Amino acid sequence: MHILVTGAAGMVGRKLIEHLAHVGKIGGQEIKSALLHDIIEPTGPEFAPFKVETVALDFSAPDTPARLVADRPDVIFHLAAIVSGEAELDFEKGYAVNLDGTRNLFEAIRTIGKETGDYCPRMVFTSSIAAYGTPLPDEIDDEFLQAPLTSYGTQKVIGELLLTDFTRKGIFVGVGIRLPTICVRPGKPNKAASGFFSNIIREPLAGEEAILPVSEDVSHWHASPRSAVGFLVHAAEIDSEAVGPRRTLNMPGVAATVAQQIEALRKVAGENVVKRIRREPDPMIERIVGNWARGFAPKRAIALGFTAEKTFEEIIRAHIEDELGGRFVA
Amino acid sequence: MHILVTGAAGMVGRKLIEHLAHVGKIGGQEIKSALLHDIIEPTGPEFAPFKVETVALDFSAPDTPARLVADRPDVIFHLAAIVSGEAELDFEKGYAVNLDGTRNLFEAIRTIGKETGDYCPRMVFTSSIAAYGTPLPDEIDDEFLQAPLTSYGTQKVIGELLLTDFTRKGIFVGVGIRLPTICVRPGKPNKAASGFFSNIIREPLAGEEAILPVSEDVSHWHASPRSAVGFLVHAAEIDSEAVGPRRTLNMPGVAATVAQQIEALRKVAGENVVKRIRREPDPMIERIVGNWARGFAPKRAIALGFTAEKTFEEIIRAHIEDELGGRFVA
Repeated sequence: MHILVTGAAGMVGRKLIEHLAHVGKIGGQEIKSALLHDIIEPTGPEFAPFKVETVALDFSAPDTPARLVADRPDVIFHLAAIVSGEAELDFEKGYAVNLDGTRNLFEAIRTIGKETGDYCPRMVFTSSIAAYGTPLPDEIDDEFLQAPLTSYGTQKVIGELLLTDFTRKGIFVGVGIRLPTICVRPGKPNKAASGFFSNIIREPLAGEEAILPVSEDVSHWHASPRSAVGFLVHAAEIDSEAVGPRRTLNMPGVAATVAQQIEALRKVAGENVVKRIRREPDPMIERIVGNWARGFAPKRAIALGFTAEKTFEEIIRAHIEDELGGRFVA
Repeated sequence: MHILVTGAAGMVGRKLIEHLAHVGKIGGQEIKSALLHDIIEPTGPEFAPFKVETVALDFSAPDTPARLVADRPDVIFHLAAIVSGEAELDFEKGYAVNLDGTRNLFEAIRTIGKETGDYCPRMVFTSSIAAYGTPLPDEIDDEFLQAPLTSYGTQKVIGELLLTDFTRKGIFVGVGIRLPTICVRPGKPNKAASGFFSNIIREPLAGEEAILPVSEDVSHWHASPRSAVGFLVHAAEIDSEAVGPRRTLNMPGVAATVAQQIEALRKVAGENVVKRIRREPDPMIERIVGNWARGFAPKRAIALGFTAEKTFEEIIRAHIEDELGGRFVA
């Protein structure tokens, strides 16, 4: 099979490619070739048992999606997106990539199907818990209203709606996944409002100080990068009939307060590591985070076989294994 | 003030215009001029105390929305749409008008605002109870999930999401209203699956036979054309702050089973009229209607002052007054 990954230079995209290069298959079918797309040229895996092509294209350019699907990929992982903060600051760019780009991708598939009559790929669409807006319960269930309060969330929910309608019409087989906040994010601390959830784990484990800008009773919904890759692959392999008419699913994860995150870090890595977290309250970040989902009861996804960590300790251990070669600065 | 009505040749559009011509004002402000748009040239009101221009334009043509808002309407009633059945049969046309047309209209307003810095009109957007998809409760509350199962419903929910985001960004002041099925629809019987809800009242009152294709325990959600006009005007006048961040509201109406509709007809018009309803079960219509909303608890709209009939008898009496000059064929 031929696969396409849009947004393949992002953290989740890179990890997905590494995983696919390692296993070589999706749903028992051998991957013959992969096209990796991003706005900058993505780096392919070090070794892959299939042909890898990379391409740097602006996803919002009207002809980009058609070029990307010209070789009729059997599975498409659509990860390309302008992230939340940038979509909020740059209204036009957010809509151009997240809405128009996604629509053009879906339409490019419809065009091939209309012309050839035998094209109906699997479309894995990454949505986000930004689909939900306050007021929110402690646990969001599978029937909870999507009422986003950001442009990014709006664009993602529109993508979900199109995914459902195009799937219903037999244009592709869409499965959408609302990703939890990915934690622990590897790399450098960044300015994203959600950055501290990862920073307060990653930096202390690397012997560095980390800033905690919110109070410890802030609760949030997390899954590891490893789980995110698992979600994507499972969404590509799952029996479509079992998903039913509502095509986007809340993914499993771990609900943890910051206090629980810190306690898990203490158990896994000890008090010395925890001491590297410095409290420096930031009312703006506290306010932003106060509008975010605190937890989910993702029954449908669990029943469909999606799995994630059960505790925040597991999330920390996954980070130490996958990113730190099993070691940290005690 | 200057107003724009898109889809002004439709039944609700025509009744809205007649009403506005009669009262001459919106929210206490005098209407100076109105631009009436539709795919066919709309007929203006017989008399209006303001200037009326009519224009026939394809709403899906990329430059149509910009032409319609060039004179900076203060209030826009956006009614133009491809209806449910046609949007289901003609995928491209439905998306071109209901999604792209709406998006282009919203963008045309944003462009003027960006260029001039002082344009932020009221946008009244008509959505539909097709925003909801099964499984549905007997009473849909204001927090119930929008999970449409038709292309039309999908396009309407996307319009709602854009309306909310554009309003949040200060581009316009949007108020969306999810209209009940309008009953009693004047005119000839039509092929719409929902047509019989009106046919079984209108035709017998006119001395004609009507066909009832579903069982009498089918329940549905109705409001009169008079109420629909009231909703639109109230949405144009209402205090925006009071609406809050979720900009689209379920409108009030009357939940009635077909048996209750018939009983109301009997009370208002007598047994002779009721006898003109002929049972002719149609399993396809029964199945389609089985997926529709049966009732609502539209608390937010009621609290915000939207009003409709309280009983189906009132709906029938409104029809006799507004369409039949107070008389029917007994």
